[in-house]
Amino acid sequence: MHILVLGAAGMVGRKLVERLVRDGRLGDGAITRMTLQDIVAPAKPDTSIAVETIAGDFAVPGFAEKLVAARPDVIFHLAAIVSGEAELDFDKGYRINLDGTRMLFDAVRLIGDGYKPRLVFTSSIAVFGAPFPDTIGDEFVNAPLLSYGTQKAIGELLLADYSRRGFFDGVGIRLPTICIRPGAPNKAASGFFSNILREPLAGKEAVLPVSEDVQHWHATPRSAVGFLLHAATMDTAKIGPRRNLTMPGLTATVGEQIAALKRVAGEAVAARIKRVPDPFIIGIVAGWPRTFEAKRARELGFTTEEKTFDDIIRIHIEDELGGKFVA
Amino acid sequence: MHILVLGAAGMVGRKLVERLVRDGRLGDGAITRMTLQDIVAPAKPDTSIAVETIAGDFAVPGFAEKLVAARPDVIFHLAAIVSGEAELDFDKGYRINLDGTRMLFDAVRLIGDGYKPRLVFTSSIAVFGAPFPDTIGDEFVNAPLLSYGTQKAIGELLLADYSRRGFFDGVGIRLPTICIRPGAPNKAASGFFSNILREPLAGKEAVLPVSEDVQHWHATPRSAVGFLLHAATMDTAKIGPRRNLTMPGLTATVGEQIAALKRVAGEAVAARIKRVPDPFIIGIVAGWPRTFEAKRARELGFTTEEKTFDDIIRIHIEDELGGKFVA
Repeated sequence: MHILVLGAAGMVGRKLVERLVRDGRLGDGAITRMTLQDIVAPAKPDTSIAVETIAGDFAVPGFAEKLVAARPDVIFHLAAIVSGEAELDFDKGYRINLDGTRMLFDAVRLIGDGYKPRLVFTSSIAVFGAPFPDTIGDEFVNAPLLSYGTQKAIGELLLADYSRRGFFDGVGIRLPTICIRPGAPNKAASGFFSNILREPLAGKEAVLPVSEDVQHWHATPRSAVGFLLHAATMDTAKIGPRRNLTMPGLTATVGEQIAALKRVAGEAVAARIKRVPDPFIIGIVAGWPRTFEAKRARELGFTTEEKTFDDIIRIHIEDELGGKFVA
Repeated sequence: MHILVLGAAGMVGRKLVERLVRDGRLGDGAITRMTLQDIVAPAKPDTSIAVETIAGDFAVPGFAEKLVAARPDVIFHLAAIVSGEAELDFDKGYRINLDGTRMLFDAVRLIGDGYKPRLVFTSSIAVFGAPFPDTIGDEFVNAPLLSYGTQKAIGELLLADYSRRGFFDGVGIRLPTICIRPGAPNKAASGFFSNILREPLAGKEAVLPVSEDVQHWHATPRSAVGFLLHAATMDTAKIGPRRNLTMPGLTATVGEQIAALKRVAGEAVAARIKRVPDPFIIGIVAGWPRTFEAKRARELGFTTEEKTFDDIIRIHIEDELGGKFVA
């Protein structure tokens, strides 16, 4: 089985590749070959599987054709310009997130001799925009409020239509906000959801820019990888024409996040959170979704590794901190 | 005021131009210039307004730039490949309905010196796909089941994002199935909704391929033109970021359509309908929407000329048959 990963050097991409290499198989098939693409060269994993790494812009005409020429059995499309950059650079966001995605889909389509890979596309809850109902169901309108969400929503529509026409066997998954996101704090408006847990666990201070009643939708990196693997191996005969699914997650207020941190790591760790309200972040976050039903995805077998927010913290300590934190 | 109409030779486009010429104004502004585009040359109306007619494919690179170079104040974008053709010819449908629409939007965007025309885009209820609730509300998911609906849904997303960014002031309107569609019977799956009324009124037989309990969503050509004019002149400060609106219409079963025909034109006219069930058409129509709420559009001032299905028939007799029918 040959697997192609676009966006393999990103946080989720790296974790996906690690897991594929560790398992050595995907569903019933042994992995014999992997092609890993990103704009910067992805790290070459230590494995006996044949791995090719490719650095390059997948939205350059002709590039996608080369990526799919060897007819990978499964394609994970994780490559994207993130929301902040897509908002700042209109042309770049549309070029990568829309044109690049379409070029990839068309490259598969134009092989045209019955080649029909499974294609897993990472979408986002950014396809939804306020005003929201209290719980967002699977039939809620896609009315994004950012160019990034617009581009992802268009990718979803193309994925559904190309799948309906039989060009590939697509599954689009809308990932929750990943928590706890490993690595250094970033300036994304959503960064604080992870920062207020990750930094205190590492003995550092973190800033909470919003009030504790802000509520949002989360999943661990481990669950995100689990979603990708399930999307790649599930029986798509059961999915019907609506091939884009809101992934399950956990809803929690910031107050509930902090309470979980206290339970798992203690009061002293939680005391490293400094409250510095930021009107700009407060304004952005006010328009974000809080809770999804994710009924279809659960019925189709998508599950989270974590059952409580305490689990989200424990999984970070296990997967990223070698089981230890700074008490 | 300079008005540009793309798709001016189509049925709705022709009626829009007739109305604009008759009114001589749009909202508060006198019309001083009109540019009429279609793939075949639109008829030149008899008017003192300066009219330029242009025959050409608006999805050819560079064409849209020429259309908008004179900075029209209002752009009506009605140009499209219809659903049957977009389904049969994948490349043509995407080229015209997606690429062409984006080229038009980008041509306006790239003028970029504060030029911000009102842009009215005709979308379709084909952006929705079964399964449906009994009444489809304004927050129902866009999950089209045809390439045409996919392309229109993408156009809607682009229109909303480009409007949010201030490149133009867009309004997308999802037209109901137009009834009674004038002209010769066509082979569209939806054709019978009009055929069974128009042909008997002209003294001819018509075939009804489905059962009388089939229910659908209709508006007259006169209302469609009214929607376009309102979209071009409404106060968009009230519309918010969701700029694509399901237009109001009338829901009716085929049985109710026929009952209306009997009331307005008599039993003898309705007797010209022959029942010839067609399993292919029955299958297609089973997946179509029946009733919409259209609450937002009504709140924003969109109204139909017709209040009952009897009115739909009377308006056809007035507008198309000079007040007379074959009894």
